[in-house]
Amino acid sequence: MIINESYGHGGDVYRHDVLLDFSANVNPLGTPPEVIEAVRDAAGRLAPYPDPYCGELRERLASLHGVDAADILCGNGAAELIFQFALALRPRRALLPVPSFSEYESALRAVGCETEFYALRRENGFAVTEEILRHITPETDALLLCTPNNPTGVAVDWKLLLKLLDRCRETGTWLLLDECFLDLTDPDSAYSLIPELQENDRALVLRAFTKLYGMAGARLGYAVCRNRAFALEMCRMVQPWNVSTTAQAAGLAALGCTEFVSRTKRLIAEEKKYLLDELRALGISVLPGKANYLMLSGVPGLCDALLEKRILIRNCSNYRGLGEGDCRIAVRTHAENERLIAAMREICHA
Amino acid sequence: MIINESYGHGGDVYRHDVLLDFSANVNPLGTPPEVIEAVRDAAGRLAPYPDPYCGELRERLASLHGVDAADILCGNGAAELIFQFALALRPRRALLPVPSFSEYESALRAVGCETEFYALRRENGFAVTEEILRHITPETDALLLCTPNNPTGVAVDWKLLLKLLDRCRETGTWLLLDECFLDLTDPDSAYSLIPELQENDRALVLRAFTKLYGMAGARLGYAVCRNRAFALEMCRMVQPWNVSTTAQAAGLAALGCTEFVSRTKRLIAEEKKYLLDELRALGISVLPGKANYLMLSGVPGLCDALLEKRILIRNCSNYRGLGEGDCRIAVRTHAENERLIAAMREICHA
Repeated sequence: MIINESYGHGGDVYRHDVLLDFSANVNPLGTPPEVIEAVRDAAGRLAPYPDPYCGELRERLASLHGVDAADILCGNGAAELIFQFALALRPRRALLPVPSFSEYESALRAVGCETEFYALRRENGFAVTEEILRHITPETDALLLCTPNNPTGVAVDWKLLLKLLDRCRETGTWLLLDECFLDLTDPDSAYSLIPELQENDRALVLRAFTKLYGMAGARLGYAVCRNRAFALEMCRMVQPWNVSTTAQAAGLAALGCTEFVSRTKRLIAEEKKYLLDELRALGISVLPGKANYLMLSGVPGLCDALLEKRILIRNCSNYRGLGEGDCRIAVRTHAENERLIAAMREICHA
Repeated sequence: MIINESYGHGGDVYRHDVLLDFSANVNPLGTPPEVIEAVRDAAGRLAPYPDPYCGELRERLASLHGVDAADILCGNGAAELIFQFALALRPRRALLPVPSFSEYESALRAVGCETEFYALRRENGFAVTEEILRHITPETDALLLCTPNNPTGVAVDWKLLLKLLDRCRETGTWLLLDECFLDLTDPDSAYSLIPELQENDRALVLRAFTKLYGMAGARLGYAVCRNRAFALEMCRMVQPWNVSTTAQAAGLAALGCTEFVSRTKRLIAEEKKYLLDELRALGISVLPGKANYLMLSGVPGLCDALLEKRILIRNCSNYRGLGEGDCRIAVRTHAENERLIAAMREICHA
């Protein structure tokens, strides 16, 4: 919860009277009916406390990833796990490629960590390059990395990711790898580091239900961490009942929605191509992102102009390392995307 | 979430095959139909992120308590706010009357706080007495207090509570007062400190929806804190989306359930009297608790014997300051209470 005036994220449909929301990176198909039904059903079981072990859910996730249930940590959204990571580790120095999701910085700030912001360069298309390896030293307590990155959509090259894991092992650096968008990523970049994790690795891979299953309001994310001592330490930073009964029910139902996932992936692939083509035809600079969103550049005033048409997109000027004219749009359904492009066409021609 | 074997609380209906649960202190009437309906309805709005400001809910709570919305902090259950308090304050020394709810100690341990356990004495009926005032010194960074206390049900005397607030003001000690059971407390003891809080007081009053509205599974609690700087600091310890869309909807619906609340209070009063009479008739030592639960003493083996009959009560032997034979039962519906008493009678006569 926040009480200050500035909310630095997308998706604030509560304070904007909008017709279309392109500002949050959630599944354009919305919540699968099975998940809605599971939450409706769980509404009748709210009196008892939620299962503090998230037993059934962790068993299912463990089996999905080929790890032990003890390697799975469930959270009140993946965002909670970012804070738990920072609170449990209390790193003195952390390396943070930017631009990226701002909650990493918020969590590091909460524990007074000195953060080295590693600037991803616009001229490199905001890609993480091998140069980053030199910035990981024995003094680096933690590296927080997101792939594909938010808001750029740029994925870390697979070979480089393996090198990063190795380098972190050498230097004793904790790696938090956020794969929250990996399920919505182009197949050529959708490689997960989870199978590479070894026991006692100082590494944590984050995953969310939020985006893929269109259930950001239910709050459910998880981490895979094969370092038991650290996992216990992370649990010590939160109450036992952080994952609600509704979230656990929603998660279990979501894991059965395989057809919905396939349909989503096809839709994202088709619609991303449509948006890329149309945006380029409008002369707008757009990064060839690998995830279910696209970052546009060089379009100052676009966010406000769209908001006048009651279309909300993500103004990225408050991202560290970005500026005026950078913004992000989610890939939505074809009808919505057409309306966005039509609105942008009007704005560009005005 | 926890991954260790030992879950030190009541209400674990997931790992006990029970017919009756007296181990969790939630409303015996269960969840109000309006709350169930609100959650069912919210199930259709899970795709967007929850409102990070908890705007409507905080407005309603502020108006209820005669404070500003900025004085209200909503949490993923009141338990989250206990951790936020500890994480934001990072007290070096805290004073903690025991026995009490163990999450205070867990939260203090999470920040490495040196905790002075102030032993509430059995011979005093576990009451907080004026003697505690002498233990609050300028070195005491925080006092964490629960009224009525859990698991004893003993409420802090109102005049003493005011003295405690004054003493904390003198010594610069932060007071966390947990009033989570106050709505289910006998009228003669149901005084809230909220109206006494002054701007910038180093004090925080905790409240829950969990118990009164039978919605522990939905996770919703709040704090009233009129110290804006500290409230901001507490917000910095968590993600912006810690209160789910379902929890916010449930809370708003719950606030309208005034008839349900009256009915609950009548039931608790009647049934507590019934249980007290019957337990005493069985020769069981029971504290005259003010809340919706009762602490029994001197009955070793009772929990296991009841569990054999598939009735779960709270074994309190793991509470700091309690021991074998101490246990807690929730006040439930008459039919359930009768079954409990019948089972206890069988056990006592065997």
